[in-house]
Amino acid sequence: MKILIAGSYITKFGELWEKSLKDLITEAELGVIKNSKFDDEEIEAIFVSNMAGGIFDGQLHLGAMASGVLKNYPPAMRVEGACASGGLAMIVAEYALLSGKYKTVMVVGAEKMTDVSNQMATEGLNGAADTEAEFGSTFPGLYALMAQRHMKEFGTTRDQLSAVSVKNHKHGLLNPLAQFHKEITISEVNGSEMIAPPLRLLDCSPISDGAAAVILTTKDLPNCPEIMGFGQGMDSLSLAKRKSLTTIVAGVKAADIAYKMAGIKPGDIEAAEIHDCFSIAEILAIEDLGFFKKGLGGKATIEGKTTYGGKVIINPSGGLKSNGHPVGATGIKQIAYLSQLIRDKKIKTGLTQNIGGSGATAVVHILGGKR
Amino acid sequence: MKILIAGSYITKFGELWEKSLKDLITEAELGVIKNSKFDDEEIEAIFVSNMAGGIFDGQLHLGAMASGVLKNYPPAMRVEGACASGGLAMIVAEYALLSGKYKTVMVVGAEKMTDVSNQMATEGLNGAADTEAEFGSTFPGLYALMAQRHMKEFGTTRDQLSAVSVKNHKHGLLNPLAQFHKEITISEVNGSEMIAPPLRLLDCSPISDGAAAVILTTKDLPNCPEIMGFGQGMDSLSLAKRKSLTTIVAGVKAADIAYKMAGIKPGDIEAAEIHDCFSIAEILAIEDLGFFKKGLGGKATIEGKTTYGGKVIINPSGGLKSNGHPVGATGIKQIAYLSQLIRDKKIKTGLTQNIGGSGATAVVHILGGKR
Repeated sequence: MKILIAGSYITKFGELWEKSLKDLITEAELGVIKNSKFDDEEIEAIFVSNMAGGIFDGQLHLGAMASGVLKNYPPAMRVEGACASGGLAMIVAEYALLSGKYKTVMVVGAEKMTDVSNQMATEGLNGAADTEAEFGSTFPGLYALMAQRHMKEFGTTRDQLSAVSVKNHKHGLLNPLAQFHKEITISEVNGSEMIAPPLRLLDCSPISDGAAAVILTTKDLPNCPEIMGFGQGMDSLSLAKRKSLTTIVAGVKAADIAYKMAGIKPGDIEAAEIHDCFSIAEILAIEDLGFFKKGLGGKATIEGKTTYGGKVIINPSGGLKSNGHPVGATGIKQIAYLSQLIRDKKIKTGLTQNIGGSGATAVVHILGGKR
Repeated sequence: MKILIAGSYITKFGELWEKSLKDLITEAELGVIKNSKFDDEEIEAIFVSNMAGGIFDGQLHLGAMASGVLKNYPPAMRVEGACASGGLAMIVAEYALLSGKYKTVMVVGAEKMTDVSNQMATEGLNGAADTEAEFGSTFPGLYALMAQRHMKEFGTTRDQLSAVSVKNHKHGLLNPLAQFHKEITISEVNGSEMIAPPLRLLDCSPISDGAAAVILTTKDLPNCPEIMGFGQGMDSLSLAKRKSLTTIVAGVKAADIAYKMAGIKPGDIEAAEIHDCFSIAEILAIEDLGFFKKGLGGKATIEGKTTYGGKVIINPSGGLKSNGHPVGATGIKQIAYLSQLIRDKKIKTGLTQNIGGSGATAVVHILGGKR
């Protein structure tokens, strides 16, 4: 049974003061139906990705809210796995389709993060950590530990970290929906405010509002990208219990399953939307996904191997850094953005990697356009 | 493909001051493995039900927490649909099994509600409502409207409402894990504090801590109850948009799908665990599920038709009212409790009904022991 992506929609990402969580979900749902060959009534179920609506918006029960946007109130539910909620909602939709219960479903991801203070947003996101959070660490601190270790073990440099953000801001210029449209330089990243050594402000993805949706179907339609493989991997919530600080083991597991299911190798991937919540996360990811040898991700980035004309285009959308990171929307946006590149025949085969927390949950999808 | 319930476990429900959300999840996971023929390593995935860990416990990413309890870090995620989260997590597990991706999975539900003030708990739960919440209504107020309408349309009486709570407290005496072990009388319910007319304190289920877990498998095992049918239905979040205040349309839809899948009729059900968050909710449910004609649920209850020796045993566990209502745990507890009755050969066929919010989401399961 083949699962096809029959439509996609992404809202503008950014500080969308005039829009509520409900507005964003509604725009994405109606937008994706318009961008597909399906009517409202043909959507048999909805899977909603959102991390922190309860904390940021006082709104739980988003399944019911998403269901109410469509005429027939299709079955709906929310799926959550911190910042990997989008990837997980995709997986639940895939289970539902493969079970034969439904033929056509929608996956919608949304997050409205700017209606609370930065402190509250930080504390809310910290709910995705465990023991380290009790000792006061926030996510930049956890990824900073990984960056320090990577620099020590492999000689990754400050300039190499900065090259990730510089490249993603450049890619963001090509994406009209990106939160930032501003080219930055390595020296600007190097000189930005220190957050958690060695990570500086411009190493970090922003607080964002936004939504994205896709329609998945097992019906036979022409010119629709196919979901060739998907996998989920897990590791300890607490960094202290992990075997390595320079490999996200959950991401390696997820990728292994997805590559095997798709029957392809890392070298077959032309573009990938990966989870660059911090610059170091992109370096870890491009190594863990098999695009570059462990330790050489920073070097590959600064040498231009992760952009147009290089080995693999990493984060053509601008990634979390420049496109923005409304957490519940991110995993769906990755799928939507890549599927649009495939539909537009810019690439044939792509990969998405969505990470939850500091790497306890990871989801990898492989999309193909061989049809 | 048959899905069997290969093990179940329920923690004590109540005000468990000495236990954290993590403690409750851990106890349920290790307990259900002990109560099954499976080892830790044989659990291929975990589906976690929880409504408000982000608000009540500052803890999101519960999938990763639940995964970390087991040795091999199986894939895990959280599923949420307000108070119907448990029923929905069951459905996701069923999709995953029917997709053929896994043969044996765990579903665990937990909620730790007593670590916040009553006001914060009320506000947190209110995140499951929509427009009415903006005008200040809380859940007792919404169910009170349904009760008023049911009394006006069908002549349901104060004593009939009270008979629900009296019967459920009596059933709770038989359940050592119930939050309350205290017989109450109709006049005690009638005289308890007014909450939202006509609903009084003893019409309302309590704030509770607790967890429950089941292991589901498609492997062939002897003496395991079978999931014969399941269904999900939805309706408007807002009462103002509903066609009726005396029928939970989502529940009717869910029951129709589940009865059809199981190939049985309401008259075949010997016992049912249903969602009595308020006394009126049980009256609506036993009518909507087809056990009694619309309008006659209150009369049937006060005449003893919903207890031992009657037509169908409603809430043998004591229900939400007496067993307690840790929201994320409730839907799993219903399945676990009924499956134990089937395994102990006390009943052959049972039904669970789990409602989210004021009825926007509903999930019905039918369990059978014909093997």
